Amino acid sequence: MTKNVAILGASGYTGAELVRLIATHPTMKIAALSGNSKAGMQMSQVYPHLRHLDLPRLTMIEDVNFDAIDLVFCALPHATSQQVIAALPSSVKVVDLSADFRLRDPADYKKWYGQDHAATDLQQEAVYGLTEFYREEIRAARLVAGTGCNAATGQYALRPLIAAGVIDLDRIVIDLKAAVSGAGRALKENLLHAELSENAHGYAVGGTHRHLGEFDQEFSAIAGRPVKVQFTPHLIPANRGILATIYVDGDAATIHKTLAECYGAEPFVEVLPLGETPAIKHVRASNFCHIGVVADRIAGRAIVVATLDNLTKGSSGQALQNANLMLGLDETAGLMAAPVYP
Amino acid sequence: MTKNVAILGASGYTGAELVRLIATHPTMKIAALSGNSKAGMQMSQVYPHLRHLDLPRLTMIEDVNFDAIDLVFCALPHATSQQVIAALPSSVKVVDLSADFRLRDPADYKKWYGQDHAATDLQQEAVYGLTEFYREEIRAARLVAGTGCNAATGQYALRPLIAAGVIDLDRIVIDLKAAVSGAGRALKENLLHAELSENAHGYAVGGTHRHLGEFDQEFSAIAGRPVKVQFTPHLIPANRGILATIYVDGDAATIHKTLAECYGAEPFVEVLPLGETPAIKHVRASNFCHIGVVADRIAGRAIVVATLDNLTKGSSGQALQNANLMLGLDETAGLMAAPVYP
Amino acid sequence: MTKNVAILGASGYTGAELVRLIATHPTMKIAALSGNSKAGMQMSQVYPHLRHLDLPRLTMIEDVNFDAIDLVFCALPHATSQQVIAALPSSVKVVDLSADFRLRDPADYKKWYGQDHAATDLQQEAVYGLTEFYREEIRAARLVAGTGCNAATGQYALRPLIAAGVIDLDRIVIDLKAAVSGAGRALKENLLHAELSENAHGYAVGGTHRHLGEFDQEFSAIAGRPVKVQFTPHLIPANRGILATIYVDGDAATIHKTLAECYGAEPFVEVLPLGETPAIKHVRASNFCHIGVVADRIAGRAIVVATLDNLTKGSSGQALQNANLMLGLDETAGLMAAPVYP
Amino acid sequence: MTKNVAILGASGYTGAELVRLIATHPTMKIAALSGNSKAGMQMSQVYPHLRHLDLPRLTMIEDVNFDAIDLVFCALPHATSQQVIAALPSSVKVVDLSADFRLRDPADYKKWYGQDHAATDLQQEAVYGLTEFYREEIRAARLVAGTGCNAATGQYALRPLIAAGVIDLDRIVIDLKAAVSGAGRALKENLLHAELSENAHGYAVGGTHRHLGEFDQEFSAIAGRPVKVQFTPHLIPANRGILATIYVDGDAATIHKTLAECYGAEPFVEVLPLGETPAIKHVRASNFCHIGVVADRIAGRAIVVATLDNLTKGSSGQALQNANLMLGLDETAGLMAAPVYP
Repeated sequence: MTKNVAILGASGYTGAELVRLIATHPTMKIAALSGNSKAGMQMSQVYPHLRHLDLPRLTMIEDVNFDAIDLVFCALPHATSQQVIAALPSSVKVVDLSADFRLRDPADYKKWYGQDHAATDLQQEAVYGLTEFYREEIRAARLVAGTGCNAATGQYALRPLIAAGVIDLDRIVIDLKAAVSGAGRALKENLLHAELSENAHGYAVGGTHRHLGEFDQEFSAIAGRPVKVQFTPHLIPANRGILATIYVDGDAATIHKTLAECYGAEPFVEVLPLGETPAIKHVRASNFCHIGVVADRIAGRAIVVATLDNLTKGSSGQALQNANLMLGLDETAGLMAAPVYP
Repeated sequence: MTKNVAILGASGYTGAELVRLIATHPTMKIAALSGNSKAGMQMSQVYPHLRHLDLPRLTMIEDVNFDAIDLVFCALPHATSQQVIAALPSSVKVVDLSADFRLRDPADYKKWYGQDHAATDLQQEAVYGLTEFYREEIRAARLVAGTGCNAATGQYALRPLIAAGVIDLDRIVIDLKAAVSGAGRALKENLLHAELSENAHGYAVGGTHRHLGEFDQEFSAIAGRPVKVQFTPHLIPANRGILATIYVDGDAATIHKTLAECYGAEPFVEVLPLGETPAIKHVRASNFCHIGVVADRIAGRAIVVATLDNLTKGSSGQALQNANLMLGLDETAGLMAAPVYP
Repeated sequence: MTKNVAILGASGYTGAELVRLIATHPTMKIAALSGNSKAGMQMSQVYPHLRHLDLPRLTMIEDVNFDAIDLVFCALPHATSQQVIAALPSSVKVVDLSADFRLRDPADYKKWYGQDHAATDLQQEAVYGLTEFYREEIRAARLVAGTGCNAATGQYALRPLIAAGVIDLDRIVIDLKAAVSGAGRALKENLLHAELSENAHGYAVGGTHRHLGEFDQEFSAIAGRPVKVQFTPHLIPANRGILATIYVDGDAATIHKTLAECYGAEPFVEVLPLGETPAIKHVRASNFCHIGVVADRIAGRAIVVATLDNLTKGSSGQALQNANLMLGLDETAGLMAAPVYP
Repeated sequence: MTKNVAILGASGYTGAELVRLIATHPTMKIAALSGNSKAGMQMSQVYPHLRHLDLPRLTMIEDVNFDAIDLVFCALPHATSQQVIAALPSSVKVVDLSADFRLRDPADYKKWYGQDHAATDLQQEAVYGLTEFYREEIRAARLVAGTGCNAATGQYALRPLIAAGVIDLDRIVIDLKAAVSGAGRALKENLLHAELSENAHGYAVGGTHRHLGEFDQEFSAIAGRPVKVQFTPHLIPANRGILATIYVDGDAATIHKTLAECYGAEPFVEVLPLGETPAIKHVRASNFCHIGVVADRIAGRAIVVATLDNLTKGSSGQALQNANLMLGLDETAGLMAAPVYP
């Protein structure tokens, strides 16, 4: 039976990615698209690559009729999201792609996002959307919080290792290389082609990136004690994809075995043979995550490398995977397209 | 009912693209993959982005059992293709992606490819694979010749105009910008990242590109008299896509109307509103072709711009579209994925 | 003897390029830098690649002391430029990099730039800055108007041919591929890396690009009768460089000979052997222009390909070349650095 | 007085970069160019961007007359270099850009390069070419060994810190992002544009990269005890530049002070204000190295980021800087060109 969905904030990259994915979904139908700054426009005027699709016109949020909607994807900026979602009818399920419901503690939200949370009850209710680790909660949830794309990448590599106790919790360095679409379609100088092409640089160096809030929350919960990682994201001249190179103290073979066992039955997470590492282009435009493990020449240290597409597995693909669960559909529906290479 | 296909020459980019597309095809199954230089390897060793798929191991061509195969995609180099295809059992349908069966006249083949054709009977039998214009012949064909990717782009823009007699046949200039994957995975100096990135240049300038053989053959046949176009391809620093900017003498509104009428019912060819032109990224990794028409400031002249993805609509997507017809399947099966943007 | 120069509008790309070039100039010294939106900042805060240089702090224009300045480079937007230059002391020589003084006829300016010119006397006085063709006038000028970068590229290829009468004036098509820095550091959606990388598209298609004003003015003056060319610029995913592929009716050998004779003694314009064409990366970050000529397969038609770096020979390098002449210095001073490759 | 130099192996990227730099050197003249596979060709046929220069034709090494040569730049592959240099007349000074003379211990050479050294006496004589730390030895040397480009980047950040004893020697992680020209003009699949563009991946993960031999040798010598770092290079889709993100245990302010004092008088090494980090594009095509230091949120840990252009400061620029010293010229001659941005 067809499920009707709405996408709020459809004019951003994650909104367009949702449309792309849902376009070939067997049972999901896009019944409404909102984009306040583009209200009244056809989606093909904002994203000509969607020209062949028969899509509803972009509207103001207030003009969406939520009665006929089974699930809402909310792809709005943080702070806005919490207001919009709080005002939705409680009959509608919601997958939020913003940062608003990722952190469970209002104090953490204030620390990392610089303001009080305006919907703390929803914050308590929301389920953290890292599908493979919250699958049953997500299935039952009304509100799921999409994870940060960088946070997802690091967690796929590290959660099983922390849970299994096979690495030193005080010696974790995540050096991450991120493509530019993670920054959205925002008009910022450092996102210009002339600035970024042939360039590469760190940002939020020293432990100030907001996705650290998610790492702290999740890793500490798994470990049962505070865990703080080092995390340096870098911008590289590519459009899609995240590659995290993670330095840990632990035995590579044990680490590899732990990851392989954890993900053996998962449809979207592939663990490479020990000694091999992935490339971001091997998952491009897909919902897959590839993870590799290599022993360092220094005994007792290992490198774990994880990669995923920030717009797919890191946000919109994850959102669809969660929506499938929430709507009782096949978890992989609309998500099995192979990566695009070259 | 499942149709079994084999891909010969699966280790090249067009082979990998066929695997990508067929991976989500509802009724087509990859039963054999050959790649002589990689025989014995898993496809995931050659193309790690296909790691999640359960694919047959690469073999030598002579080790493929064609009895169980309904259709063969032949993605081998020209000259090799004609030999391999001539040796296949006649019960097997064939879509050839090489240049070997595009030109019907042996003299033309020799002129453009520098050698005699070794299978001239098959050359006569082969149907030219530009689906929208040879649909019925393709449906009935045993051997279909995939078109050149540049040749396809130019023909989508020009065939209807030549057929309708709305442009001057002696004043056609095709200035084409091509991404690098059209050159395949060959190890050539000018295809290196360090050479091509931040670069752009023409090649085969002056009318020496082999795809001119196809333009000459097809346009002359449509016009009923010899037609010679000017054609300059350029290599641009991108991986997928072709953009053809075509200068013609004719009335823009008439040209636009002719194209819009021709393609109105086609699932994969989109004609933009008069005055708009497409971008190659709007069709990336998809089977769509976008065409735009603009009037020049000089009265009586117009610019037609056409774009498609060389690996999809320009080769492997076209091949799958033709295979669908030859096997009695839905023409669009496996091909409706939206373009990947950004 | 040291010549002191000021750069107004130093915070844009052409301003930064001027600083880069002048940094190794033997006798020119940067005495003032203005950038109203960045006034008070060090240049290294706006452009960290200039960190090693000892440069004056950015100021407001009104805070520049023009008494000590021999020559001003004005790298401001058009419309602003004419106001600023009109207010400068008449003792100061000026090289303007904007569009404000390129067109001699006020009606042409209004036609292409949509407003009346506010300094028509200066417009009459200004010398068009295509050095190789206005060298003596530039030497004597107080105000030189830098050319459009696209306009320069097309003129290097076509001026000698029009002057010599060796091509059909009614059959000139300029298909131009431009890197993105020509659009400056402006925050526009289509200039984002995520939008432009892996992309290519035409713009101002149909003869609406403002540089056509320069083509019309200059070519008509040379020919002694109105000349209108077709001109389609395209944006390609590169940062520096312009490649113009020009289709003409004429004899390739005659065209090649005409160009080779015209530029034989020029330090910055290289004509390739007949049959060869240039690549934009062969002139990157340099003041050189490379031109090639190839005969088309259709008798009587030829393709001329010209390339230069839009920020160097197309604007700031040209400006410095002209300033050298105006100040009685060696024309090539500061400009002989070889292109950067790869 | 003019110094005559020869470049052996001039057809590779480091050879072409030497030509580019020497082209504007005030007193150095290229008297001979060798390139065995291209012997007989003009340099402009191999590198058209050098077309404007009047250069000697490429020859076989044995056809170079070394009598008139003051200094030889040897840009040949390792293993070949040691044979060629051993056969040169002892009157000629040599800067070798290969790996052959970087490691002083024959056992280390065998360990990292897999074969015995054939010129161990020269190996003993050679001076390690990291100019800022071996300046006086270089001035007096007959044979200088150019450093590895990655090895140079890491050393600029770490040598002063190890010497000053301000970091934990057992906790050094170097995560390095390298552009592709460091791999040369070799025809390898992973260097193709279609493979690398939109990609990023680690290589030699786990401590197997040969430049570790240099880190081990140099850091252990400074520390007076064995030092082993962790080092993971990554290939990013850019052509020039290296960015090393280095994780250390130490006080950020002390680290910053140590670096600032060490490099305060150096013409080519810039230490950024504490808390800022560099971008690779800020040094592109220049001989500069930028270093930044940031305190991590975990007390007692810091991140040091260093960047340089692998073809300039990382190889050919370094080679010229050393040659200047060896020939008694101004150390900075030919090397002060500002970085190219954007």
